[in-house]
Amino acid sequence: MAIIVQKYGGTSVGSLNRIEAVADNIIKTRQQGHQVVVVLSAMSGETNRLLAMAHSLDKQPSNRELDMLLATGEQTSIALLAIALIQRGYSAVSLLAHQIGILTDNHFGRARIKSIDNKRLLQSLEQEQIVIVAGFQGVDVEKNITTLGRGGSDTSAIAIAATLGASECQIFTDVDGIYTADPRVVPAARKLDCISFDEMLVMANLGAKVLHNRSVEYAMRHNLPIRVLSSFCEGKGTRVINQQNEEWLLKQQDISSVVHQQQEVMISLSDIPTNEVVDAIFIALANENIDVDMINQSFHNRRSEIITPLISLSFTLHKRDRLHAVSVLQNVTQTYHLPTIKIVENIAKLSVVGVGVKSQVDMVFSILAQKNITISLIFSSEIHISVIINEIDLIKGLDALHDAFNLTLLT
Amino acid sequence: MAIIVQKYGGTSVGSLNRIEAVADNIIKTRQQGHQVVVVLSAMSGETNRLLAMAHSLDKQPSNRELDMLLATGEQTSIALLAIALIQRGYSAVSLLAHQIGILTDNHFGRARIKSIDNKRLLQSLEQEQIVIVAGFQGVDVEKNITTLGRGGSDTSAIAIAATLGASECQIFTDVDGIYTADPRVVPAARKLDCISFDEMLVMANLGAKVLHNRSVEYAMRHNLPIRVLSSFCEGKGTRVINQQNEEWLLKQQDISSVVHQQQEVMISLSDIPTNEVVDAIFIALANENIDVDMINQSFHNRRSEIITPLISLSFTLHKRDRLHAVSVLQNVTQTYHLPTIKIVENIAKLSVVGVGVKSQVDMVFSILAQKNITISLIFSSEIHISVIINEIDLIKGLDALHDAFNLTLLT
Repeated sequence: MAIIVQKYGGTSVGSLNRIEAVADNIIKTRQQGHQVVVVLSAMSGETNRLLAMAHSLDKQPSNRELDMLLATGEQTSIALLAIALIQRGYSAVSLLAHQIGILTDNHFGRARIKSIDNKRLLQSLEQEQIVIVAGFQGVDVEKNITTLGRGGSDTSAIAIAATLGASECQIFTDVDGIYTADPRVVPAARKLDCISFDEMLVMANLGAKVLHNRSVEYAMRHNLPIRVLSSFCEGKGTRVINQQNEEWLLKQQDISSVVHQQQEVMISLSDIPTNEVVDAIFIALANENIDVDMINQSFHNRRSEIITPLISLSFTLHKRDRLHAVSVLQNVTQTYHLPTIKIVENIAKLSVVGVGVKSQVDMVFSILAQKNITISLIFSSEIHISVIINEIDLIKGLDALHDAFNLTLLT
Repeated sequence: MAIIVQKYGGTSVGSLNRIEAVADNIIKTRQQGHQVVVVLSAMSGETNRLLAMAHSLDKQPSNRELDMLLATGEQTSIALLAIALIQRGYSAVSLLAHQIGILTDNHFGRARIKSIDNKRLLQSLEQEQIVIVAGFQGVDVEKNITTLGRGGSDTSAIAIAATLGASECQIFTDVDGIYTADPRVVPAARKLDCISFDEMLVMANLGAKVLHNRSVEYAMRHNLPIRVLSSFCEGKGTRVINQQNEEWLLKQQDISSVVHQQQEVMISLSDIPTNEVVDAIFIALANENIDVDMINQSFHNRRSEIITPLISLSFTLHKRDRLHAVSVLQNVTQTYHLPTIKIVENIAKLSVVGVGVKSQVDMVFSILAQKNITISLIFSSEIHISVIINEIDLIKGLDALHDAFNLTLLT
């Protein structure tokens, strides 16, 4: 008899009917003889409803009070699920962060879990109860309610699974696993049986939305297998496991997926005289909390003189920070008398992920060249290579790479 | 600088506009130099919305889980009010039962407060914060969330006021005070400036809905003045105070109010042979948790024999228990071969309340007799007399008594 932790996201508990379906799903796992701990998000739509009320009172509501407010979302869903399970004749108990000591720091809205006291969880499991925990939330040392920010419920589930020494953390969501590419964009995309933490982490960082990078990091650190699967249909989903795991070694292939993202813009500055000015640019952006993603720096000479090489700089950042970044950078260009900033809006980031990517870099470039796709920026690590291309070339590039690396073939 | 505890009910915080109005009202008290602790109910309609969800999953949902669910109502309203106060430039903090140690027993849905730890409350007040507490809820020793049942937020407010040694507990509601009669029924009814705990307690028990008897008892035990006032209009409201209080001694009058209630039915049984059978009747009702209100027992002889006096029994109980009571009583009548049960549905309870009522009993009867109003049952205590009459005579009786005891005159 193993401990299984199951996490259900907002759409999985988005209505009373969905909550009843989740109850039935949990009972199936229970009937297989497992001890089950369930972590829930708020019903989909609920967080937005609460946020709208808060924002109508204050455009920038207090972070502490916002967490107090938003935490009601998961409290509602866990109580309703417990009611549905008890109605079905099962013993169940819903628990909040303060009841099981999910201790976090006090960064409201983006808190990090510091520890979980597993005493009450284990006690409830011993009493044969199905334990239902509010995801996304914790308490700080002063008992203030905190929330964990994006992907928070996944993090809650993985942290609880690690604390309990669970055999697996199952993330139930609206897709049935991790794919070789986004199946909405690449119809030939295939569901993966398993993938390594490293690859998953890179995919999450590159824009795959199924799992949040913080949760994957946490699971990797605790060597806790994750299984991503659908709460809407049966299936084995995708296991996310350690690279040394026998299961992974059997199935692994050089390239596991192609990932894309369309949330960025590219900013270019030229004729920068010194590295100190380059530093000044990034310091100015960092001071305003603007994250920069990919960076390319190149040197060229002034047209008329041949004395000092000038620097050209291109980097990408999130669309939402576009106007903010431009106003910050205009101060810098005025101070140092630099030419006008250039912004390219219609770009896409295309990435190839896999443990064998290092030996395949040339192939990535030649495939894109064959398709006449121009690359504006390149960034690579041990297990991925990302290129910035024109948005208009995205699907062509995705299809070509997906095909060239045989991702549609069954392993 | 005094500590003032203010409680706002569901209609007082029934919308975002109302929450903003409450914020402004609190700021007025703050600007008078007082330390303010606010206790809130859930926004009106919210508790019913949550109950409907629970009942659609289970007709008899788990009491523990129902409390977990319902407690989100107050959590939402306190967070929103804190946001509104902070937006207005005031320091405010919302707090839940577990954060300030409102310890209760574990009778979910009708828990009683055992203790409150005032440390965090005092600490927040010292930091010049407006403290906003979720009413209606507590935690048991195992940290389970409990709710206090009907009138729970009033009880929370009064218990917190007592713990803090507040100078007054202000209950803001949708009426502007305690009246000499229900002003919707008796247009001549007058608002009282003050009333004693004893009178208020009797009025609450007799059906006056402004304050719940448990809250009044609590305030009386701690000699904590209550002020009932409207959150919709300015005014001094009604003070509920100790009978020995100078303020009360100055203003008191023999009769303070007439109260009515139309929620009961009268049940009569006749030809009961012995007191043991009477006991059996009340034990059968008690076993089914059916509360009996007024009881009248009379003796008469069998028509044919003159040996043993037979007993006639009449009593009232809440309309909702009517069918349940009848089925319980039918078992008793069958066992003891008693005649059919008689139920009178269209009755009303009319009560006169005041410290001088004992010397005015005759007057009550003669006034009702002058108006040709028949009395079915009578019940009296030190400070009240209640009679059961036909519902059709209610307004005539209310007006006549209100008039006869000069309740419309200003004192």
